[in-house]
Amino acid sequence: MTPTTREECAALDAADPLAPLREEFVLPEGVIYLDGNSLGALPRSTPGRVADMIEREWGQDLIRSWNTAGWWDKPRTLGAKVAPLVGADPDEVVVGDGVSANLFKVLIAALRMSDRSVVLGEAGNFPTDLYVTEGAVGLAGATQRRIDPDGPALGEALAAGDVAVVLLSHVDYRTGTLRDMPGITRTAHDHGALVVWDLCHSAGAVPIDLSGCGADFAVGCTYKYLNAGPGAPAFLYAARRHHPVVDQPLSGWHGHARPFDFTADYEPAPGVSRFLSGSQPLVADAALEASLDVWAKADMDLVRAKSLAMTDLFLRVTGEAGLVSATPLDHGRRGSQVALLQPEEGSGYPIVQALIERGVIGDFRAPDVMRFGFTPLYLRYVDVFDAATALVEVVRTGEWREERFAQRAQVT
Amino acid sequence: MTPTTREECAALDAADPLAPLREEFVLPEGVIYLDGNSLGALPRSTPGRVADMIEREWGQDLIRSWNTAGWWDKPRTLGAKVAPLVGADPDEVVVGDGVSANLFKVLIAALRMSDRSVVLGEAGNFPTDLYVTEGAVGLAGATQRRIDPDGPALGEALAAGDVAVVLLSHVDYRTGTLRDMPGITRTAHDHGALVVWDLCHSAGAVPIDLSGCGADFAVGCTYKYLNAGPGAPAFLYAARRHHPVVDQPLSGWHGHARPFDFTADYEPAPGVSRFLSGSQPLVADAALEASLDVWAKADMDLVRAKSLAMTDLFLRVTGEAGLVSATPLDHGRRGSQVALLQPEEGSGYPIVQALIERGVIGDFRAPDVMRFGFTPLYLRYVDVFDAATALVEVVRTGEWREERFAQRAQVT
Repeated sequence: MTPTTREECAALDAADPLAPLREEFVLPEGVIYLDGNSLGALPRSTPGRVADMIEREWGQDLIRSWNTAGWWDKPRTLGAKVAPLVGADPDEVVVGDGVSANLFKVLIAALRMSDRSVVLGEAGNFPTDLYVTEGAVGLAGATQRRIDPDGPALGEALAAGDVAVVLLSHVDYRTGTLRDMPGITRTAHDHGALVVWDLCHSAGAVPIDLSGCGADFAVGCTYKYLNAGPGAPAFLYAARRHHPVVDQPLSGWHGHARPFDFTADYEPAPGVSRFLSGSQPLVADAALEASLDVWAKADMDLVRAKSLAMTDLFLRVTGEAGLVSATPLDHGRRGSQVALLQPEEGSGYPIVQALIERGVIGDFRAPDVMRFGFTPLYLRYVDVFDAATALVEVVRTGEWREERFAQRAQVT
Repeated sequence: MTPTTREECAALDAADPLAPLREEFVLPEGVIYLDGNSLGALPRSTPGRVADMIEREWGQDLIRSWNTAGWWDKPRTLGAKVAPLVGADPDEVVVGDGVSANLFKVLIAALRMSDRSVVLGEAGNFPTDLYVTEGAVGLAGATQRRIDPDGPALGEALAAGDVAVVLLSHVDYRTGTLRDMPGITRTAHDHGALVVWDLCHSAGAVPIDLSGCGADFAVGCTYKYLNAGPGAPAFLYAARRHHPVVDQPLSGWHGHARPFDFTADYEPAPGVSRFLSGSQPLVADAALEASLDVWAKADMDLVRAKSLAMTDLFLRVTGEAGLVSATPLDHGRRGSQVALLQPEEGSGYPIVQALIERGVIGDFRAPDVMRFGFTPLYLRYVDVFDAATALVEVVRTGEWREERFAQRAQVT
């Protein structure tokens, strides 16, 4: 039941089984951070883990650490730690490169598995997905078709029978809408298409069962809900049944069957390792490892329940004040963020800035959405209550109309 | 003049203008490190720089650091710091992704600029260059031809008139042979081909003048002579004259002309930024920044002179003991490493292992080469003398024949 007072929120915090995990994070004084859907907060263990990697593994053991510190296998050992968060087996996930490169790899790989040539994407997907698809289909002689995946267009497009690959974000980056992964995957397969899921806004935000859904491929970032640090290495999932035949184009020596033979011709490794290319930034990998070790202590069902309770609370307080949500009220269709429509033209950006001045950090996404991310590992119910109350105040007082809040920073 | 005694080496160290830079590095007790051509040593400033980035920029300032800490522009500001080391202008280099992805980008981009379809590579290039070329030509409908670039085959292959792109390593990873960048670039251009230089084994090892040579594209890593840490982000150079027309396939939002408009269609940024794809691992970038700031204090002509003096010294001592070099004796054709042929079949790996037990770290590269890298920023002449003497001892005594030295580690 959604609390209605700050006292009720405090009582929920006192009873929250996830509350101890908040101690695992560094949170700046005087800040309520609702942008963990863009950049997750810093785990307390990260600085020490990274310092040890740099000073001992690199500084003292130098080149030997490729063996002794497990550097060579890091893409696989980190992949195995991501796996339970996305419902995959440990040998179906590798970590390395960025989301863009990984998306390129799986799109080309999937197109090569099909005798069709259409990649079906979403008109409103995060732009890099659209841009990478544009780059991939351009090279592969395929075409991109874009639809609204939350309406009837998806089924209609699939029924045309020419779709090779469906690429969808599991959670929409702007509205926070959660897509029906089991249903869409099944429908796509029924129509002879493969499915690539972009998990950037859902890994660590909602329970994911790639294996249970029969998903083909997935990619995702680790710097949002997974808290691995800005631009941290991405992950790639490929269903085991595809491993023997799949052929990706960024063929580098870390994906070779016998890399230390230094042979002239490429022979892909068995298993998901064939999706690797070159050496990975191990300093960044150390930060990712620290953050995944925090996640290993979290029960995803508890995380999901708290996430829904928090977004319910935020939606109720802001809704009562007249703010309109672009995020579905239906729990089954909601990720772990709330997107509110700006109350009037041009108000979204300055409202977010005025709110930041009050110590509540969210962000604005063009053209009209104020985004607030909810991260149950380190947010309290009282934080959500205070943030929603502050937002309502900013709108009610009109303080956001002050000139200085209109100044655009380069990056929002 | 090459010193002949340890005392003469010590005298050279005492007079060495680069000697103070050794203090900028962490070097483990009791180790002479001749593997900086594979993984550079740790700069003393790196742990502090990374800790500040993690604890202040990420931990305290969180998402705001995309603006306030210059995160968004890091691929460009780091590129500008790499530029003087490769003879490029600051706006011709970006940092990000790995060597493999960058090589893929420039190969496809170069193929698109040509009406020919052959990529001319070297039979003995570092395997990932061969594998990435294989992946790129497979997608682009082009073909790969491999030759020995140090013989007459290069000119003959170019004369055929069907070569679109020449891809060469500036310094051969195995033998340490330095290629004639000005001459080869000119010859390739005379025959209507573009040139991509792989600088992995030459950036920070030898003076490089990409602009002066009229080179078209280059890629390189930062974790060898540039000391940025294992798997650190790579760099990419594109000559300014190509910027307006060049079209690379990993089109992501960081390469867009107006990324924060979140428009659906890709429009490449003006300038070298169009080679960027997605977000970069900023924790690893912080380590790179620290190491480039050390390089800013080094005079490359002094580095080169010391490198040649050191390799001369190592070659003389080992040569007098009968070891045979695969590295050219001609200064004009030598990088900053020495490759010695194993004295008998199967001896290379155990000799290197026995030498490591004596505290001298080099490596073995199949099938028959013992490699030793010379890094003038942190090595002394006495180190080189001691290392060469130890190697001669290991071979003379036959101690490498002990069983335990034959045990292969996973990664050498």
